Amino acid sequence: MKFYYYINGQLLPAEQASLKMNDLGLLRGFGLFDYMRTYNGKPFMPQWYMERLFNSACLMDLEIPTNETEILYYVEELFNLAKLPDCAFRFLLTGGYSTDSMTVSQPNFIIMTEPLPVQAQERFDKGVKVISNEHLRELPEVKSTNYIKPILMAKQIKANKAYDVLYHKNNEISELSRSNFFIFKGDTLITPDKNILKGITRRIVIELAKPHFKVEERPVNIAELEEVEEAFTTGTTKKVMPIVQIDDLLIGNGEVGKRTRHLQNLFNQLIDNY
Amino acid sequence: MKFYYYINGQLLPAEQASLKMNDLGLLRGFGLFDYMRTYNGKPFMPQWYMERLFNSACLMDLEIPTNETEILYYVEELFNLAKLPDCAFRFLLTGGYSTDSMTVSQPNFIIMTEPLPVQAQERFDKGVKVISNEHLRELPEVKSTNYIKPILMAKQIKANKAYDVLYHKNNEISELSRSNFFIFKGDTLITPDKNILKGITRRIVIELAKPHFKVEERPVNIAELEEVEEAFTTGTTKKVMPIVQIDDLLIGNGEVGKRTRHLQNLFNQLIDNY
Repeated sequence: MKFYYYINGQLLPAEQASLKMNDLGLLRGFGLFDYMRTYNGKPFMPQWYMERLFNSACLMDLEIPTNETEILYYVEELFNLAKLPDCAFRFLLTGGYSTDSMTVSQPNFIIMTEPLPVQAQERFDKGVKVISNEHLRELPEVKSTNYIKPILMAKQIKANKAYDVLYHKNNEISELSRSNFFIFKGDTLITPDKNILKGITRRIVIELAKPHFKVEERPVNIAELEEVEEAFTTGTTKKVMPIVQIDDLLIGNGEVGKRTRHLQNLFNQLIDNY
Repeated sequence: MKFYYYINGQLLPAEQASLKMNDLGLLRGFGLFDYMRTYNGKPFMPQWYMERLFNSACLMDLEIPTNETEILYYVEELFNLAKLPDCAFRFLLTGGYSTDSMTVSQPNFIIMTEPLPVQAQERFDKGVKVISNEHLRELPEVKSTNYIKPILMAKQIKANKAYDVLYHKNNEISELSRSNFFIFKGDTLITPDKNILKGITRRIVIELAKPHFKVEERPVNIAELEEVEEAFTTGTTKKVMPIVQIDDLLIGNGEVGKRTRHLQNLFNQLIDNY
């Protein structure tokens, strides 16, 4: 396999791709991204990912220097060059090269092809533990590049044998560091609706769940976790991943619940047939 | 003038310097910096800037892949190559190249030589206006590269004919987007002591002020601004810059006060003789 990147209209071998030092993404953390994958060699829900990418750009007042059609054309080119059954695409948009290290000029837009991260099957089968932390992302509705928090917490996550961190602020749960959060209380599926990045997998799972469960998109108080029977997280690489422990609290006695398993199966069917 | 940059042990012409796309500073905003300048061709207070740089690195659990002696050796080299009477140095430390786009490996360390920004003399003479905004930097004591807030606010700052933004949170004032904040109430000089980046110029001004004024480092409530007679900001490029208006509130009838002018003179004497 040999990865190519798209940089401002040009395709380059990944190892030759670079940005100059005065890029605002680097100097000022002024950047955003999105992350899409293929299933069965086909980009998954590309319109939805594009919609989110363009929305992030709009909220950070950055213009993507190309359009959806061209982006998806290059996605196909990059996929063909990667020569892999499936892969991921990272779209990166920065404030561009700045002459005074603060003023946005012409944004830099990059598409990086990446191998899909390997998720141990055990995580899907037996669920994962997460730890909680009081935090709220600065612009939750934007997929900005600011991930200082989870990188700083990496050692603590590992020391706790946890998979990720669950954010809450003022007793309200929002999301995990890079994925959304769901709980089951009886047959009601609940997921926070504010201060989150609205995930594509989240959106799909809500639709898949509707014929089978009552679905509530609403604030989730941290105290509610005590009453939760099942929990899971959703994300592009996490799909439907059961959460069986939050800090010291076991969810559903620490075993994956049948409702979560049901949604996992529905999602897996959808991607198998995509 | 021709600028060179130091990148991980190598000196390169600025236009040839670049970082690969998988640098965590770029992909995840995981980076920090510091910014030092020369006066009369001599790096200003280099030990204090180095102390702060190494402290930021420590707080972000990043190891600078060189030492203070070597950094200051290259600072001199870079200054000689720049062939300018004075210049600035931007030290940038990132999480380095990551294979999984999340895990810190070997940090990248860069020293960039830059021309000093030109500050209109009018700002020092007549003072500036700032606008306030509810915000707290994520890691206030670290000079991290996260400047999403002031870049997003750039248009609003300009529309208000303001110079910068003054942050407050829970009614407590912390700092400006890139500089510290001081007020005078009578002969008492007051500056916030928490949730701030401890500026080098702030430190110098406090020392310069002590023989002449009572100095208090303590929380400043936003309601206190009504009682303030003088205000100013300090920073490496701002030196002692009077603030004569905060939003719609005129400070000292909108004119630079005599105590601020006194500190400005003391600071200017110090740098003239440095």
